[in-house]
Amino acid sequence: MSDFRSLLEAFDNKFPDRDYRIEIVSPEFTSVCPKTGQPDFGTMTITYTPDQKCVELKSLKFYLQSYRNEGIFYENVTNTILDDLVAVLEPRWMKVQADFNARGGITETVTVEHRA
Amino acid sequence: MSDFRSLLEAFDNKFPDRDYRIEIVSPEFTSVCPKTGQPDFGTMTITYTPDQKCVELKSLKFYLQSYRNEGIFYENVTNTILDDLVAVLEPRWMKVQADFNARGGITETVTVEHRA
Amino acid sequence: MSDFRSLLEAFDNKFPDRDYRIEIVSPEFTSVCPKTGQPDFGTMTITYTPDQKCVELKSLKFYLQSYRNEGIFYENVTNTILDDLVAVLEPRWMKVQADFNARGGITETVTVEHRA
Amino acid sequence: MSDFRSLLEAFDNKFPDRDYRIEIVSPEFTSVCPKTGQPDFGTMTITYTPDQKCVELKSLKFYLQSYRNEGIFYENVTNTILDDLVAVLEPRWMKVQADFNARGGITETVTVEHRA
Amino acid sequence: MSDFRSLLEAFDNKFPDRDYRIEIVSPEFTSVCPKTGQPDFGTMTITYTPDQKCVELKSLKFYLQSYRNEGIFYENVTNTILDDLVAVLEPRWMKVQADFNARGGITETVTVEHRA
Amino acid sequence: MSDFRSLLEAFDNKFPDRDYRIEIVSPEFTSVCPKTGQPDFGTMTITYTPDQKCVELKSLKFYLQSYRNEGIFYENVTNTILDDLVAVLEPRWMKVQADFNARGGITETVTVEHRA
Amino acid sequence: MSDFRSLLEAFDNKFPDRDYRIEIVSPEFTSVCPKTGQPDFGTMTITYTPDQKCVELKSLKFYLQSYRNEGIFYENVTNTILDDLVAVLEPRWMKVQADFNARGGITETVTVEHRA
Amino acid sequence: MSDFRSLLEAFDNKFPDRDYRIEIVSPEFTSVCPKTGQPDFGTMTITYTPDQKCVELKSLKFYLQSYRNEGIFYENVTNTILDDLVAVLEPRWMKVQADFNARGGITETVTVEHRA
Amino acid sequence: MSDFRSLLEAFDNKFPDRDYRIEIVSPEFTSVCPKTGQPDFGTMTITYTPDQKCVELKSLKFYLQSYRNEGIFYENVTNTILDDLVAVLEPRWMKVQADFNARGGITETVTVEHRA
Amino acid sequence: MSDFRSLLEAFDNKFPDRDYRIEIVSPEFTSVCPKTGQPDFGTMTITYTPDQKCVELKSLKFYLQSYRNEGIFYENVTNTILDDLVAVLEPRWMKVQADFNARGGITETVTVEHRA
Repeated sequence: MSDFRSLLEAFDNKFPDRDYRIEIVSPEFTSVCPKTGQPDFGTMTITYTPDQKCVELKSLKFYLQSYRNEGIFYENVTNTILDDLVAVLEPRWMKVQADFNARGGITETVTVEHRA
Repeated sequence: MSDFRSLLEAFDNKFPDRDYRIEIVSPEFTSVCPKTGQPDFGTMTITYTPDQKCVELKSLKFYLQSYRNEGIFYENVTNTILDDLVAVLEPRWMKVQADFNARGGITETVTVEHRA
Repeated sequence: MSDFRSLLEAFDNKFPDRDYRIEIVSPEFTSVCPKTGQPDFGTMTITYTPDQKCVELKSLKFYLQSYRNEGIFYENVTNTILDDLVAVLEPRWMKVQADFNARGGITETVTVEHRA
Repeated sequence: MSDFRSLLEAFDNKFPDRDYRIEIVSPEFTSVCPKTGQPDFGTMTITYTPDQKCVELKSLKFYLQSYRNEGIFYENVTNTILDDLVAVLEPRWMKVQADFNARGGITETVTVEHRA
Repeated sequence: MSDFRSLLEAFDNKFPDRDYRIEIVSPEFTSVCPKTGQPDFGTMTITYTPDQKCVELKSLKFYLQSYRNEGIFYENVTNTILDDLVAVLEPRWMKVQADFNARGGITETVTVEHRA
Repeated sequence: MSDFRSLLEAFDNKFPDRDYRIEIVSPEFTSVCPKTGQPDFGTMTITYTPDQKCVELKSLKFYLQSYRNEGIFYENVTNTILDDLVAVLEPRWMKVQADFNARGGITETVTVEHRA
Repeated sequence: MSDFRSLLEAFDNKFPDRDYRIEIVSPEFTSVCPKTGQPDFGTMTITYTPDQKCVELKSLKFYLQSYRNEGIFYENVTNTILDDLVAVLEPRWMKVQADFNARGGITETVTVEHRA
Repeated sequence: MSDFRSLLEAFDNKFPDRDYRIEIVSPEFTSVCPKTGQPDFGTMTITYTPDQKCVELKSLKFYLQSYRNEGIFYENVTNTILDDLVAVLEPRWMKVQADFNARGGITETVTVEHRA
Repeated sequence: MSDFRSLLEAFDNKFPDRDYRIEIVSPEFTSVCPKTGQPDFGTMTITYTPDQKCVELKSLKFYLQSYRNEGIFYENVTNTILDDLVAVLEPRWMKVQADFNARGGITETVTVEHRA
Repeated sequence: MSDFRSLLEAFDNKFPDRDYRIEIVSPEFTSVCPKTGQPDFGTMTITYTPDQKCVELKSLKFYLQSYRNEGIFYENVTNTILDDLVAVLEPRWMKVQADFNARGGITETVTVEHRA
């Protein structure tokens, strides 16, 4: 659980009888490497099937921006964002994929999934 | 159900014995954000297997253009277009995918499916 | 069945013991809209697993060119080309996909399949 | 001169001693064809060398959105946007390029230039 | 001079005091090879600086469609289209570029220019 | 079986306990059309799971070059290359895909598979 | 002049007799909008012909990172970076181009040049 | 097992209760052909589901760089890297894919998988 | 001068009063390396302004195919093709560009020009 | 001057009366950073107009490979390669462009020119 979870807001899903998919892509994610203090950059892709709640986009933007000056590892930030969103939205299914920019000529992608 | 459903026209499927797929892509969809009053832009992709009826393309164009000055959220417009088309065409299967342009650096895609 | 079916020629499949796939792409397909008289343009993709016969490419080219001045709807031309090819080749499996160019900002793809 | 010119706001160029270039791309421009009443879509690219004033981006967004329900021809809208911006900004040089989406399979680009 | 020149219609240039550029791209040009009788396909790009007249887009579409069943060589069709447009529009400058699809693995582009 | 099979050389697979995949792409394949005498060009893609033997790359290059002046149809050359490679390597699984360049505006791909 | 200028380090150009060009692209530039407090993202491209000094890349990285939490407008940051680099390097020629990501569907690029 | 296995370091997976996927792409892999002594270049893609341990990225970079002057065949290096990583990380699942640059106009990709 | 020059045929330029440009792209050029006997592949691009004569495309195709089994260096084949075409067509201007595929990871392009 | 200059071999330009251009692209250049000991990767593009001599491609490949384990800065390696090639070939004009891969999210290109 991150310190920023409370920033996330939800609105009622008006079509709960139907399984459908929402995909949100944020190519301007940035955080800080806890080892080197250097900024990391990446694309955060959140895909989910809502149950009773959908994430409010503006609140999600502020939530993701909160990591801007946080020192956190790739694997941790991806799992934490999934945990926060699952706690707030209780979706039927959710996937968070984080594609980080190359460092030292090497690129890493972390993909985490939750199933209700 | 939208106010524009009656704009949709259908013609008889001449090959009802065969399951086949029609995909229609409209990259010029635009509506208005009900919160900010700002225009939204996106690509609407409609894929379906017709049963007895196919959608007439010109009527679909006018139907989609009707949202031009409507204030409606992403999730609602996608589900409503599916509802309208399913009511008029009674397809064996249909999917509506809406890819909205980035707002605040964040892009959203909504994908809704119907199976007869 | 089109008027042009007799243009299609076949040659013997020399490898009938093996299930394999042939894909033919013709990006220069053109016919005429029966409503407006305006030319339509598209890409015709034919994929099949031959049984005893393969289509002769030059005859297929002439067959597809026969639609140049024909007034025919998207759904009809795609299904008719499949019917003609299935009748002449009796393939184990065949798919015809027609990707038509945008009209009024809207693009349509029709995909039809036959299984022996 | 358009009815919307007064929407444009400028701010002081803090580097008037230097000739430099600002390019603004708005891929979500839409107006209406005065003949058919059908919506037109395109990308508006504005490039200029400021003299004493730079255009304020948010006011430019509102200005461009004002054409949403206006009936106006390609050539006229491009020349009019240049006239309005030149009147408000008095730039050393300015170019407006409008790339309109295909209609009837045909695409048009209009490019207009002003030199002080 | 082609038989189709009379199809071209012009409208008054409302901005004759300004040198500006109009580019029209028609990726659905088709004619017939006079030698083989086989259809040719290509993209016709017309760029010009209007003087007193601009070409009306719908009439240009019909004009270009007239070549659909004409037997004419690459070099001739490109030069003839330039001649017809120059005669009707009397532009300050005009360029016609024809990019023909590959035949026998070889692609040809013809580019013709007129300066008043 | 081709005349060139003996050109193919194999080396021992050092990891026979593991199922893995090797994909070899040769975009410079050329042969001759037996009907017209005209050269054909294409990309040959060979994918396989080795059993006890892997193909030696240089010998494969010489083998594929042997078709340079051979008159052979698309379907035959693809099936023959598969037959030769299967005979020499006895793989657990193999696929040969041949993507030939457009002739008369039409492209053909042949895909052939072998399973031990 | 920015507060960060002193971060920039230079090394001696070993080839001062030759006019040559160095281009440095930093696609991970981020600052903050002074109006909205929202982060901006962009690509900073620095091109120059060195005289006696070249910029040390690591120091340039730290210099560009210093803007991470600074509130500064597009035009100002681009001109200021040029001023700082010119002061430290005294190049024969330098260009700074800043391509900022879309905000409200609108993209801005600022290009500033210095000539000794 | 390579001589470089000891270079690989692991850190504890903090989310062992969840099956998730990490993909690491290193497009700057280079080794030497043991036959010709010529350098080989390629992209190494490592994908895995961690169990108790994740690979430390910097140590992986040094590990992969160790092959820089090693003479080793495509199939061997791919299998050996998998063996080393499996020994150190004991992942639930892992795949190593090596895409080598063209030699003599021919490209080879080797894909190796491990399942716990 | 090559042995194949006599294969080139010309037809009369019907628009000799106008300077215009013809570009011919042949992406299926192949010859043989005189040193190694290995086939070379490349794209031959011929651009010219005709005077009294244009090259007949089919004859050009046969001319270029003649190099299929010829041993000839990159620089020589490019210059020789220019010499042959200039001798036959006497163009006002001509450029021949040969882009050869990579060998040993290295690509070469030769560009030769003639001005009357 | 590098230690490897003597590796470069030249052959006689058979067309010295004509100014023409040769471009050689080597996307597999690698050297070592003298500061960090880490490998650098890039694409070396050499363009020149030969006078009496052309560079022999295989010798150029060996020459470029010599930098594989050399510690040398971006600016130095680019200028040195130009110096070596100019000394050996005495070309009428030559340009060397080195595009290095990103390090720390920053990419550098060095472009050096020589004119006889």
